[in-house]
Amino acid sequence: VIAPGATLGILGGGQLGRMIALAAASLGLKVHVFSPDEDSPAFDVCHAVTRAPFDDEETLGRFARACDVVTYEFENVPRRAAEIVAALAKLRPNADALAITQDRLAEKTFVSDLGLPTAAFRGVLDEASLAQAVGELGRPSVLKTRRFGYDGKGQAVLRDGSDLAAAFASLSAAPSILEAFVPFEREISIVAARGVDGSFAAWEPVENEHADHILSVSRVPARIDAATADEAASLARRIGDGLDYVGVFAVELFLLTGEAGQRLVVNEIAPRVHNSGHWTIEGAETSQFEQHVRAVCGWPLGSPASRGAVEMRNLIGEQANAWSAVLAEPGAHLHLYGKAEARAGRKMGHVTRVTPRI
Amino acid sequence: VIAPGATLGILGGGQLGRMIALAAASLGLKVHVFSPDEDSPAFDVCHAVTRAPFDDEETLGRFARACDVVTYEFENVPRRAAEIVAALAKLRPNADALAITQDRLAEKTFVSDLGLPTAAFRGVLDEASLAQAVGELGRPSVLKTRRFGYDGKGQAVLRDGSDLAAAFASLSAAPSILEAFVPFEREISIVAARGVDGSFAAWEPVENEHADHILSVSRVPARIDAATADEAASLARRIGDGLDYVGVFAVELFLLTGEAGQRLVVNEIAPRVHNSGHWTIEGAETSQFEQHVRAVCGWPLGSPASRGAVEMRNLIGEQANAWSAVLAEPGAHLHLYGKAEARAGRKMGHVTRVTPRI
Repeated sequence: VIAPGATLGILGGGQLGRMIALAAASLGLKVHVFSPDEDSPAFDVCHAVTRAPFDDEETLGRFARACDVVTYEFENVPRRAAEIVAALAKLRPNADALAITQDRLAEKTFVSDLGLPTAAFRGVLDEASLAQAVGELGRPSVLKTRRFGYDGKGQAVLRDGSDLAAAFASLSAAPSILEAFVPFEREISIVAARGVDGSFAAWEPVENEHADHILSVSRVPARIDAATADEAASLARRIGDGLDYVGVFAVELFLLTGEAGQRLVVNEIAPRVHNSGHWTIEGAETSQFEQHVRAVCGWPLGSPASRGAVEMRNLIGEQANAWSAVLAEPGAHLHLYGKAEARAGRKMGHVTRVTPRI
Repeated sequence: VIAPGATLGILGGGQLGRMIALAAASLGLKVHVFSPDEDSPAFDVCHAVTRAPFDDEETLGRFARACDVVTYEFENVPRRAAEIVAALAKLRPNADALAITQDRLAEKTFVSDLGLPTAAFRGVLDEASLAQAVGELGRPSVLKTRRFGYDGKGQAVLRDGSDLAAAFASLSAAPSILEAFVPFEREISIVAARGVDGSFAAWEPVENEHADHILSVSRVPARIDAATADEAASLARRIGDGLDYVGVFAVELFLLTGEAGQRLVVNEIAPRVHNSGHWTIEGAETSQFEQHVRAVCGWPLGSPASRGAVEMRNLIGEQANAWSAVLAEPGAHLHLYGKAEARAGRKMGHVTRVTPRI
């Protein structure tokens, strides 16, 4: 059993690592952050720091041996790095969960094999297989790199008349996946946690709005019916069980409304705390960050119950300049990540507003 | 104006500094902790650390110059150290507030001069002045050292038959204050904040229970009538204005019930965030730690509104061994301070429970 006073290692030093570190400190843990970036936001709130590239295996080994349990805060930790850590320390979530979810083709195949609904998809390795996939899935469809895509990066929409060769070249001809277009009505996510003992707790589904492919606003309650909300929790549970997952994860979903009512399609799994779960800091009994710490330490999960109607709004780039207006607004909770430069498209912070549920 | 990204210095590195640092990080500030103790709980959650004694003036100067604003987390920071910092950086609260509140005689004189009710008191410098003071105030009465007392340390109760010379010797014959006994019914505190612009916000009064002179439980709502609650806020405001105070402070009060109803007597001022305000982390719209950061940065104060009925229970010494039972209890919020050794009488953490107010 991991007890307070133990050291939690975090691979990655961004705002998610920072908020995990803050939650871990409140529970009496020491935090050790491993990140290649000098300006890592998580470095400012932890007990120990290792700054090194993920392929520095000796340093990675020293880091792992200094920790009682290690987690990661982003899905692009190299698989090899995860395996080195896993050989020397408890790595939660496990390295396979990371490997599956950092490859869009492996992830979609995994979800589909569980019998859960996804967009139709085909692997794409070259122009020929792209042409064949487009022939099968039709247009519009979306070509995505299998790895390293986020916030709409590494994607190309194929419409009538799109040049396939140019689209493939725009993704640097990297191994890719073609996904059939899903005529969704809304984007929903479900954030959930699975414990070492297989226990499971999901927050209620979140309704998300994006701007320029970046999450802009998350709201609970989502406008979905009760049966669909149950379905979201149920499919998250099957995904968590299937990955033998430990920790918090998110499933991004498309909501479709047809003659038979609402229906969900799995878009993506994030093997980590998730931007659409930031509302839980003030908006739920247990925040996703505390819950992640509880899970990876083998502690009991906390209640995911909501505290009201909640809106979380990201502060992207220069939007963070509005910090003083947010501080002056009664009931608005400001979070800033300590990033020096407010570059365009950069997540600088967020604001959460909790109001009584009607 | 101090903006996010600025550096907040904290003199002192205990759990109060740790919780201030966590709140400051959430608002995008960097935190620099100055503490003489290697094992300072706040060292684990901050951007920069200076470990040096408070009389190392050169190091203190370097620390002050590295900060945009400096605060303190305990009242026994030497006055000289505070003055050195104040000459080089914004020190909030100011050095005079510190000087007054770290001397029980100066503090009682200050409160009394404001026209606020205190126990009758006399300064004691030697056995002769003690004998005279006891003659005037009677017995039972309480002899306290003027400086460095906390959690019941540095106190002696004088009853019929108590040997005055022995009592004075038990306080190492230090400059002291004799206070008349106050036949109080309950101990109440009010925690409040005052901004740079003189703005004021008080949380509702808290009812406190002590065990072995150490705070054990704080509860809101306190069992006091509305007029008395208003009176508590009003006297806190007068004290804050009188000290030209910036930041969060607490006023410990005795509640007396007589024929004319409830009445308050000021016991002590704490020029800092306070143990009886820990309930505000989950129990109020704005926590005392965030509020202190807002105040010392010159930012607008947040709402002190309560979120329900709240109980905060300290985990003293081995009580912290119950951490796993607390984690398993729905609705219980665990806080641990990262202290290695659970010594008797040591504040290791606390638990907060928020329930709907009836």
